[in-house]
Amino acid sequence: MSTESELLRHVYERSAGLERRFPIVIAGPGDDCAGLRAQDLGAVALAKVDQLVEGRHYDPETTPIDLIARKAVCRAISDIAAMGGRPLAALVGAALRDGFAHENALFDALRRSAESFDCPLVGGDIARVGGPTVIAVAVLGAAHPVRGFVGRRGAKPGDGVFVTGRLGNSLASGRHLTFEPRLREGAWLCDALGRRLTAMMDVSDGLGRDAGRLAAASGVRITIDAMSIPRHDDCPDWRRAATDGEDYELLFTASASPPPDCPTGVPVTRIGLVEEGRGCFITAPGGSDLDAADMGWEHGA
Amino acid sequence: MSTESELLRHVYERSAGLERRFPIVIAGPGDDCAGLRAQDLGAVALAKVDQLVEGRHYDPETTPIDLIARKAVCRAISDIAAMGGRPLAALVGAALRDGFAHENALFDALRRSAESFDCPLVGGDIARVGGPTVIAVAVLGAAHPVRGFVGRRGAKPGDGVFVTGRLGNSLASGRHLTFEPRLREGAWLCDALGRRLTAMMDVSDGLGRDAGRLAAASGVRITIDAMSIPRHDDCPDWRRAATDGEDYELLFTASASPPPDCPTGVPVTRIGLVEEGRGCFITAPGGSDLDAADMGWEHGA
Repeated sequence: MSTESELLRHVYERSAGLERRFPIVIAGPGDDCAGLRAQDLGAVALAKVDQLVEGRHYDPETTPIDLIARKAVCRAISDIAAMGGRPLAALVGAALRDGFAHENALFDALRRSAESFDCPLVGGDIARVGGPTVIAVAVLGAAHPVRGFVGRRGAKPGDGVFVTGRLGNSLASGRHLTFEPRLREGAWLCDALGRRLTAMMDVSDGLGRDAGRLAAASGVRITIDAMSIPRHDDCPDWRRAATDGEDYELLFTASASPPPDCPTGVPVTRIGLVEEGRGCFITAPGGSDLDAADMGWEHGA
Repeated sequence: MSTESELLRHVYERSAGLERRFPIVIAGPGDDCAGLRAQDLGAVALAKVDQLVEGRHYDPETTPIDLIARKAVCRAISDIAAMGGRPLAALVGAALRDGFAHENALFDALRRSAESFDCPLVGGDIARVGGPTVIAVAVLGAAHPVRGFVGRRGAKPGDGVFVTGRLGNSLASGRHLTFEPRLREGAWLCDALGRRLTAMMDVSDGLGRDAGRLAAASGVRITIDAMSIPRHDDCPDWRRAATDGEDYELLFTASASPPPDCPTGVPVTRIGLVEEGRGCFITAPGGSDLDAADMGWEHGA
């Protein structure tokens, strides 16, 4: 276990030259704040903080440090993708369980993972805690330069409802540790659809639950056809695809269909319709409409 | 204890109209990311994340929720002050101990405290943990429009070493919960001294230790006169004023003395000198130079 000084020395050494490699960085780790060239944030800056909790978001017994770091970074990056945006800088607050002895490796992995998205790690804070490790990642980014800020509030009756990739069984399959944030797909949707892309979010708590949030934010009703939900081969049925969490695919509404072929090869599937009303309903194979609010799970905040 | 949905509803209700009250906010809580008008971040955006840990930074038995929230916000704001900057937006990652039942009150207090610095709370994440509560606050700000980014690396031999306010006994006195981040003082120093303000940081881990960091970052030696350290009436001696932490005063170096009267009435005291060399030394009343690195404390990172 490093002392704080030793870890800081490690961080500062590894962060040397960050300004040369990432022009947005005026000053990286080592001062009271990071300094960033604000004009590189575009017109609309995006900001997000997300937390990864030991025992809840990963199993500390079986998960390599690299994948813990990767998931911490990718969860926050996925929220930038969900806006059609581009990540530009990250900061990490790490509350490490007493006795956790891999802090240098964790920092290195966080830095590598963030930089793999052209997103330098510009600052952070380390604490020791008598409990589970919590890694909070704050990411700054730029919204799409033409489409701008893509929130959850713009879905309109008549829009189609779409999802990227495939859903379900992310935890058991291990995909929750290795998913690719849909940055390129989000930007492509902004490019291709412009204002016809009406609302977007990432699917982290289960399709039905998250679609219900999008519907609530937009003041509309969303109806999803159960049999149209694209699911992974190892996901046994549509119900699991609609309720499992941690997919990190993009859920979006649009007043036109996106072009047929996403350049990254990720499938884009139309799964439903936006209507007047409230709530999110899933039309089961028999034809009955199930309220998605009754299908998911609710945990204490 | 609220469910996650209930807490989110509370947050969204309390955040309604944030865009009207704070023009930098394009979109506050409720989307995957917050959206901010990047031009309001000035030329150099500042970014910082800091963590407040239950049991280490506050006593959960005796500390009112308002003061827990205030300290979490003020620690991060103090880092903006240490750059001479201005805070503009905050995000919070809260990992709450299982059973903590004041999440609505905590959010309200975080929001009020941040807004008291004209710094809207634009986003966040809540998790439950089987361990101490950890509150990570990320703050974005703008550097001083004329002086720009004030880091730790600019101290030059011949500069004076100064500190705002008084030091020592912050924990026992309770001042660690009620300190005022030195935002106006930091901006005033930038206004008054311009480039003659050569380096600045806030004093959080003890004067000697933090001055040692500033000296190391600048590649210089700092010598502090023990008897010149301004200390609180309840701080028994210079040694405590030099080693106690959590003061959140500004430590700075300058090639000229600041004007005599800071408009806020906070005293500014010259306590030492920047010289060629390395390290931070404190000249004790008897005349001997003590290495500050031997006087502080070192905790596991």
